[in-house]
Amino acid sequence: AQSPAGTEKSGGVTQEPFPETETASDSCRLFYPEDPIKIVRGQGQYLYDEQGAEYLDCVNNVAHVGHCHPLVVQAAHEQNQVLNTNSRYLHDNIVDYAQRLSETLPEKLCVFYFLNSGSEANDLALRLARQYTGHWDVVVLDHAYHGHLSSLIDISPYKFRDLDGQKEWVHVAPLPDTYRGLYREDHPNPAGAYASEVERVVNSVQEKGRKIAAFFAESLPSVGGQIIPPAGFFQEVAEHIHRAGGVFVADEIQVGFGRVGQHFWAFQLQGEDFVPDIVTMGKSIGNGHPVACVATTQAVARAFEATGVEYFNTFGGSPVSCAVGLAVLDVLEKEQLQAHAASVGSFLMELLRQQKAKHPIIGDVRGTGLFIGVDLIKDEATRTPATDEANYVVSRMKENYILLSTDGPGRNVLKFKPPMCFSVDNARHVVAKMDAILTNMEEKVRSCETLRLQP
Amino acid sequence: AQSPAGTEKSGGVTQEPFPETETASDSCRLFYPEDPIKIVRGQGQYLYDEQGAEYLDCVNNVAHVGHCHPLVVQAAHEQNQVLNTNSRYLHDNIVDYAQRLSETLPEKLCVFYFLNSGSEANDLALRLARQYTGHWDVVVLDHAYHGHLSSLIDISPYKFRDLDGQKEWVHVAPLPDTYRGLYREDHPNPAGAYASEVERVVNSVQEKGRKIAAFFAESLPSVGGQIIPPAGFFQEVAEHIHRAGGVFVADEIQVGFGRVGQHFWAFQLQGEDFVPDIVTMGKSIGNGHPVACVATTQAVARAFEATGVEYFNTFGGSPVSCAVGLAVLDVLEKEQLQAHAASVGSFLMELLRQQKAKHPIIGDVRGTGLFIGVDLIKDEATRTPATDEANYVVSRMKENYILLSTDGPGRNVLKFKPPMCFSVDNARHVVAKMDAILTNMEEKVRSCETLRLQP
Ligand SMILES: Cc1ncc(COP(=O)(O)O)c(C=O)c1O
Ligand SMILES: Cc1ncc(COP(=O)(O)O)c(C=O)c1O
Repeated sequence: AQSPAGTEKSGGVTQEPFPETETASDSCRLFYPEDPIKIVRGQGQYLYDEQGAEYLDCVNNVAHVGHCHPLVVQAAHEQNQVLNTNSRYLHDNIVDYAQRLSETLPEKLCVFYFLNSGSEANDLALRLARQYTGHWDVVVLDHAYHGHLSSLIDISPYKFRDLDGQKEWVHVAPLPDTYRGLYREDHPNPAGAYASEVERVVNSVQEKGRKIAAFFAESLPSVGGQIIPPAGFFQEVAEHIHRAGGVFVADEIQVGFGRVGQHFWAFQLQGEDFVPDIVTMGKSIGNGHPVACVATTQAVARAFEATGVEYFNTFGGSPVSCAVGLAVLDVLEKEQLQAHAASVGSFLMELLRQQKAKHPIIGDVRGTGLFIGVDLIKDEATRTPATDEANYVVSRMKENYILLSTDGPGRNVLKFKPPMCFSVDNARHVVAKMDAILTNMEEKVRSCETLRLQP
Repeated sequence: AQSPAGTEKSGGVTQEPFPETETASDSCRLFYPEDPIKIVRGQGQYLYDEQGAEYLDCVNNVAHVGHCHPLVVQAAHEQNQVLNTNSRYLHDNIVDYAQRLSETLPEKLCVFYFLNSGSEANDLALRLARQYTGHWDVVVLDHAYHGHLSSLIDISPYKFRDLDGQKEWVHVAPLPDTYRGLYREDHPNPAGAYASEVERVVNSVQEKGRKIAAFFAESLPSVGGQIIPPAGFFQEVAEHIHRAGGVFVADEIQVGFGRVGQHFWAFQLQGEDFVPDIVTMGKSIGNGHPVACVATTQAVARAFEATGVEYFNTFGGSPVSCAVGLAVLDVLEKEQLQAHAASVGSFLMELLRQQKAKHPIIGDVRGTGLFIGVDLIKDEATRTPATDEANYVVSRMKENYILLSTDGPGRNVLKFKPPMCFSVDNARHVVAKMDAILTNMEEKVRSCETLRLQP
């Protein structure tokens, strides 16, 4: 005990609870940094601050089945009371959990590794890919984010662009964004066109004498701007990647577990015929408990074993983590949340499309299930991101007790990825508030223009 | 649901609950692979199998304050019921927890990052060191293990020796093992001699025109063989490393939180004047809940912030993880487990030393608090590791319902790192069983010799 309380301490890094003291680090960012909220309670799709004000949470895809879902909380508690140890002993939970997950996936994906974070899952995916292929290089989509670890910042253009730059073994293909990208909604075959871009990257890598271990993609690129890759894109990419000896890694960390409504996994939106070689899961998998998973094929797992080197993850696959993961699957089934996401998502999309017809600032509304983006633009001709306006909407929404945020390289895409219990009423409420805010913005602009027109 | 239950599924990878089916992966290893135990319950220092048999756990340093400690379980449950979200909102727990941890550390270490595993902590330490120093290379101790991530396998000789070998930016210094290493108990100044070895490594790195970002060391090397580096070694190493522009990272993942008895942190065994630049914590920190932490200085944190790139870890520093961490600190204090570890540890060391006097197979007994190694040898002259004998002891101990395991490059060091509630009676019981097993081994050897002597 060397130092007095409250001096030069920082809790997990940007919290400024002692305004009189120096804070230590700004690397960890808060939402609403100018006026952060202190949340003390959560339930379902709602968060509550110190004063008891209720906020509607439109963005937390970790609290997948709802904040503090009682069945998930209970499952954790029951297992915590009985046993929580590493996976060096046999335990039913880990077997049951692998079994249950396997039932949601194509048969080929039948080996499971359990870990503690999305980042750990993607790092293991990278190790598996390299071991299996004997190759080193990675192809990623532009603007992708795959995690905070050294190895993942290297393959995340969203991060490495701002840091020490691109490693020679990382190759970036264009984001298959049919609204703002190279090939758009008017292209006859955007899936093929974007896949040809990946092929071009693969060819140029091979011409340099380099070898591709993996193609990594979020099944729906999130920080890229809530992007829905055209169906068939992954199949064609997988062909090019496989021909080069690499594997296809689908990062489902933000979008798996029924969020997309029509399917349990977002990669399934590409078509029934598509099966990745590796799938990584995180965030929603444990409703907030640190759990993650890598699913892969026998062939990949065998190559990893063949090194003879043990894989040991202290907390990964503990009876508690597995109990929590099982409870999340139970709740998804019991409350039919995938079907719910499909119907509430369609309803919300429909309302947002009506808004688009009404407000020219809305350039695009895209999404599937409860993964939706509202792309705000300066004008339709250039589709220039309306970044300031998006920020303004987010902060006005917050005044209205609605938690929303932005994504995309232009930080202009309002993103919806709420807990899966988000309701039709919530959708109506959010859109009504958004309508009022946009209308008010337009009126302000109009009155400024009127002022300017006056002599 | 593509596949029938129980076919070609593997739960977290080596569990073989369905003996008739093919298992998928052998990368994850069980204890006692020939005859694994199925543990279903844990309490304090005891684990229970399906039949209700009680095992004394001498090795689980994750269940630090005892398996399923009711206060820790309760803290998790209370917070889980109320709120478990990411650190994008203000929350008291993260601030309180950083504050409480800071009280255990030298004043200089006042910035805290929260994560989910020891590996995540060491990877962040590596990023911090590189960002702060602008250098890339790392010096590590031989046989070290720092985690399962790509970046950490690179700096873990224990792992990379068996894999694709040593990266050009990794440099290995000899393990300061005064029993089996370069400089032994008869050397007048082993700390200085081993530090000179590090200096030699530093010089040769610099001669190649390379630059050192960090020296990583476990404060007490565990897989290296339960090694106690001579006091003063870290100070001298830190001088050489600082002179080269690098930082000193103390990995306390296995040995922190009072285990060593005399001090809260194992690096403090080196002397009051020693302060690492970065300390990493894991395992015991959350008594099994996935929590980890990096503590560092303002200067290092500032350099990391200066990149302007956000650090975001989805689960790290959640209200639940912090509540659990706080509860572990509360229990340590309330039950005075550090002092308990000191006294039970001394008692156990004393009993083991008596065993050493009695059984020539025991070459060395070393340790501090409840971190103890019993080094088994073929003979005193060569100190050749008695690997088979150590394995035999472990399996006989298991028959006696005592969970023990081995460490060290020769896999011949019996290691004790039990939950901190391990008692004087437990110590007596374990040593009595060990005495019986060793005596029995000796008798067998003697009767074989007698047989051989007979015509
Ligand atoms: C697509 C994607 N992959 C990986 C990660 C990393 O997950 P974690 O923060 O749990 O390490 C994230 C986190 O935001 C993500 O969005
Ligand atoms: C010294 C040391 N560092 C780091 C780690 C990695 O911790 P984890 O398995 O929680 O990632 C371990 C785990 O065994 C360890 O013993």
